[in-house]
Amino acid sequence: MNEQQTSIDIIAKHQTTLEQAREAVKTRKSWSPFKDSPSTKIHGPEKPSLGKAAFTAHLNQPFTLDLPGIKGWAGEEVSPFTQQKLGITYPLCEPENIIGSAKRAMASWAKASPDLRVALCLEIAQRMYDRNFEMVHSVMHVAGQSYTQAFSGSGPNALDRGIEALAYAAIAMDNVTPSAQYHRTFGREEVNLDKTYTLVPRGIGLVICCASFPTWNAYPAMFASLATGNPVVVKPHPIAILPMAIVVETCRATLAEFGFDPNLVTLAADTLAEPVAQHYIKHPDVQIIDFTGSPRFGHYLESTVTRKLLYTETAGVNSVVVESVDNLAESMRAIARATSLFSAQMCTSPQVVYVPKDGIKTADGHASFEQVAQTLVNEIDAIGHDPKLAAGIMGAIQGQVSLDVVEEAEAMANKHGLPILRHGEAYPHPDFPNARTLTPLVISTTSAHKQMYSEERFGPVLFIVAAQSGDDAAHEATELARTRGTISCYLYSTDEDFIHRWVDEYAQVGANLTINLTGAMWINFAAAYSDYHVTGLNPAGNACLADLSFVASRFRIAQRRRPISEGAA
Amino acid sequence: MNEQQTSIDIIAKHQTTLEQAREAVKTRKSWSPFKDSPSTKIHGPEKPSLGKAAFTAHLNQPFTLDLPGIKGWAGEEVSPFTQQKLGITYPLCEPENIIGSAKRAMASWAKASPDLRVALCLEIAQRMYDRNFEMVHSVMHVAGQSYTQAFSGSGPNALDRGIEALAYAAIAMDNVTPSAQYHRTFGREEVNLDKTYTLVPRGIGLVICCASFPTWNAYPAMFASLATGNPVVVKPHPIAILPMAIVVETCRATLAEFGFDPNLVTLAADTLAEPVAQHYIKHPDVQIIDFTGSPRFGHYLESTVTRKLLYTETAGVNSVVVESVDNLAESMRAIARATSLFSAQMCTSPQVVYVPKDGIKTADGHASFEQVAQTLVNEIDAIGHDPKLAAGIMGAIQGQVSLDVVEEAEAMANKHGLPILRHGEAYPHPDFPNARTLTPLVISTTSAHKQMYSEERFGPVLFIVAAQSGDDAAHEATELARTRGTISCYLYSTDEDFIHRWVDEYAQVGANLTINLTGAMWINFAAAYSDYHVTGLNPAGNACLADLSFVASRFRIAQRRRPISEGAA
Repeated sequence: MNEQQTSIDIIAKHQTTLEQAREAVKTRKSWSPFKDSPSTKIHGPEKPSLGKAAFTAHLNQPFTLDLPGIKGWAGEEVSPFTQQKLGITYPLCEPENIIGSAKRAMASWAKASPDLRVALCLEIAQRMYDRNFEMVHSVMHVAGQSYTQAFSGSGPNALDRGIEALAYAAIAMDNVTPSAQYHRTFGREEVNLDKTYTLVPRGIGLVICCASFPTWNAYPAMFASLATGNPVVVKPHPIAILPMAIVVETCRATLAEFGFDPNLVTLAADTLAEPVAQHYIKHPDVQIIDFTGSPRFGHYLESTVTRKLLYTETAGVNSVVVESVDNLAESMRAIARATSLFSAQMCTSPQVVYVPKDGIKTADGHASFEQVAQTLVNEIDAIGHDPKLAAGIMGAIQGQVSLDVVEEAEAMANKHGLPILRHGEAYPHPDFPNARTLTPLVISTTSAHKQMYSEERFGPVLFIVAAQSGDDAAHEATELARTRGTISCYLYSTDEDFIHRWVDEYAQVGANLTINLTGAMWINFAAAYSDYHVTGLNPAGNACLADLSFVASRFRIAQRRRPISEGAA
Repeated sequence: MNEQQTSIDIIAKHQTTLEQAREAVKTRKSWSPFKDSPSTKIHGPEKPSLGKAAFTAHLNQPFTLDLPGIKGWAGEEVSPFTQQKLGITYPLCEPENIIGSAKRAMASWAKASPDLRVALCLEIAQRMYDRNFEMVHSVMHVAGQSYTQAFSGSGPNALDRGIEALAYAAIAMDNVTPSAQYHRTFGREEVNLDKTYTLVPRGIGLVICCASFPTWNAYPAMFASLATGNPVVVKPHPIAILPMAIVVETCRATLAEFGFDPNLVTLAADTLAEPVAQHYIKHPDVQIIDFTGSPRFGHYLESTVTRKLLYTETAGVNSVVVESVDNLAESMRAIARATSLFSAQMCTSPQVVYVPKDGIKTADGHASFEQVAQTLVNEIDAIGHDPKLAAGIMGAIQGQVSLDVVEEAEAMANKHGLPILRHGEAYPHPDFPNARTLTPLVISTTSAHKQMYSEERFGPVLFIVAAQSGDDAAHEATELARTRGTISCYLYSTDEDFIHRWVDEYAQVGANLTINLTGAMWINFAAAYSDYHVTGLNPAGNACLADLSFVASRFRIAQRRRPISEGAA
């Protein structure tokens, strides 16, 4: 089979998926080419154990990647579930070699058709889906996500976001016709021109991944850059390299198989002691930076990076306003689940719950502030006191730093005499006795202590704030979003006027809002193709994953024109 | 007629134009809703004199605009044609008042439908077209453009670019569905959500205009920002305020007539002694900056502006490579016209012509380097020695600084013993005996004197460079584009292999290329809807006017979702 035929075949193989993805981002309906449940009914009986074995085979071994400029090997990952070192080492490369090879690889990739580039990204997505049972354990043992969350959130849900970005890249590139004929009369002369429009990639894309959810934003960033012709350097967090090493390995194998230079996708692993990100960030050949991580570093990039594209998702302080509810227990259960999920180590985890100090209306009558707070605590207890349930929802705490964050918050609450409604405590993990676990700490407070809850505390700590009124709560919540950033806000109210009064304000501060959601869907679940993730309007990030703006500048257009009579342009 | 009906009517009025514009940017065929000739056969016998009278009425008067925070009046425009002061004064405003009022005006504008915002921009375009005979004289007497060029280039051709940006804004906004229904099963539960997606404007758009061609990039920038919901502050160059004051006046009147706050569009006039741009550039409420002007200030912005959108078009060094030609005189005529047009004070004016030192092939046999150069000089003479033709093509020199640039270049050439093939000289303008005019200086040189021609010299000076070969010429031209920037490059060759060998290299350095064009169409004519102007890939600018990338980030998307059973979202 020749190269051209191979290209045609792979484009054909993924054509329907691409068309459906493009349709989905337009209609924003529910859609995915994947299943996000690990059930063996879907995947068959063998895949789970094969995946686990593939993960186990990585342990205490070098992770072999034939990267350019390898100057050493290192790895310092520790499993949050076993608190043991994984013992995997990764190649540490000379940045100049990585960059030089990426630049060389770009030439032929830039000339490949957009259709082919998109199709190869879809092929990579498919292969990552096929490796998802290996990914599950890899994510669990670097990040601490539970088995089911690692399967869905770091697998299909994240891959879907990559495909969503691909759909936008395809739309943006399709918007540029490859050629045109131009006919116009100037004076008495008919002028006929052939015009050719060439898509030119920007340059190397650097993808800086976060530690707790590495694949989540990596797929959209990688696919957006790759599809538009740019090589990608993946810079994983040094405590969570394995998932991204697997992704890079898959990308390189796929690209090589289809005749492209594998150095289109490289891994820039580093160590906590010797970080390499700055070298890439400052290099003139790196033209695109996708960053997911701490607000501190994100804001540093936002205020220093010039002459490059920069897309950030950092974090904010997500809030819930409980103005009134239909069913108190169900509403509090929804919040409890959201705050418990991955022990609040998510960019969508709520940290602040505003409740009017005089209580709220419910279908069953008035509920005092204390009753609301207690119901919420009870619902957290229902998870935290059930080790099997807790294991599935809370997973483990990735780093000691999050335990410290919670300890600090409790100390601060004690110092200010704030009621601790619930202490955070380790729950016994049924499968991993040494797991680093912690259930949510819940603090009751008021806006007098705003400084405590209005900065992101990355760990399982929840503040229940007694607000003067529902409107006051919404005012505080939107002001918090505007000044400190937010990715997801939540609102419970049975008063349509109240909702109507505030939805616009939430939009203006760039807070994506979930209203009155209870039941089976996690309120902080973000559905690719349907939910826009991050608005770029507040300090929680400058980008949206994904929209046209996320992809449209990753390539540029160069044109040429010449008289038609001359023949081919 | 109520407000809603008015909105429906204005949308309907411009619907066909918008549809055709969207079609045109997709097919990139030749199209315009306007006529770019000033012929009275098109416009009737009265418009020219009425327009001139309207211009004359501005002279020696304050230009009344009811702007917020007026703290004084000033104006220092001098006509390049009469070298007399225009005597027009403009309101100087307190930036904080301009910004505060723009921000207040934004609230209701953001809530207007995208369709209405686009339609009102189209209405503004139509009204500017109606005022074009007034604009002609206004542009002539601040910038020095000839009558015909001011009519077309600063009128319909520029308005078309604004409408082109509107088409892209409409495409980008249409890409976001205003609402969706989401149905998915989680576990055994069917979840049904109403989702609402709100377009949220970024913030105030600052449009910094250049002195020599103020409306050219102003329309696309203003319309791109306005259509996506952002207010606009126009900061004209202090020596060329009048054209933009007329535009701002028209915008404000139109917006007010349709019930919007006129402070959506304001004028931030200033003086050379007390510039105000920095105040706006640094203000946090200014979220978008569109800059057209000097490379020096453009590069300063590119290397300092963070946390804002920045779109620049500065300038580069445009080159012509003459490798071989069919008809020598026709090719040289095309180059001569391009370099003569507006006395090379255009972003598309060629400054360097590379010709192989051993001469070139032509249909009539071999032509030596000297013959090629002499033919080019003859063709410039044919314009420069015919005052009527020169007046129509060259117009006047906007500022003394351009005369100095040419004098400096000649002194430098003399110092290095380079042959002056043609001296720049004033030509007598038939209508304006005091016009500041200058025909092109032509210097013969080699790459040994690269530093002379490889920086932009803003004035009528042309370097003919004896290259080692055609390939050497193309190599130098593309390297010049890559390092110094370019907006338009030109290539003449009858050798298809040669063309094929170089077109990709031109694309990679972001040089839009015109090949073998002779005849009635100016080789440096850029057709809105069909030609992409600026690639953003080299130092001549970071944006393309216009493509999706020019508009897609000017608004953001905020969403909300809630269970369907609850009723309206």
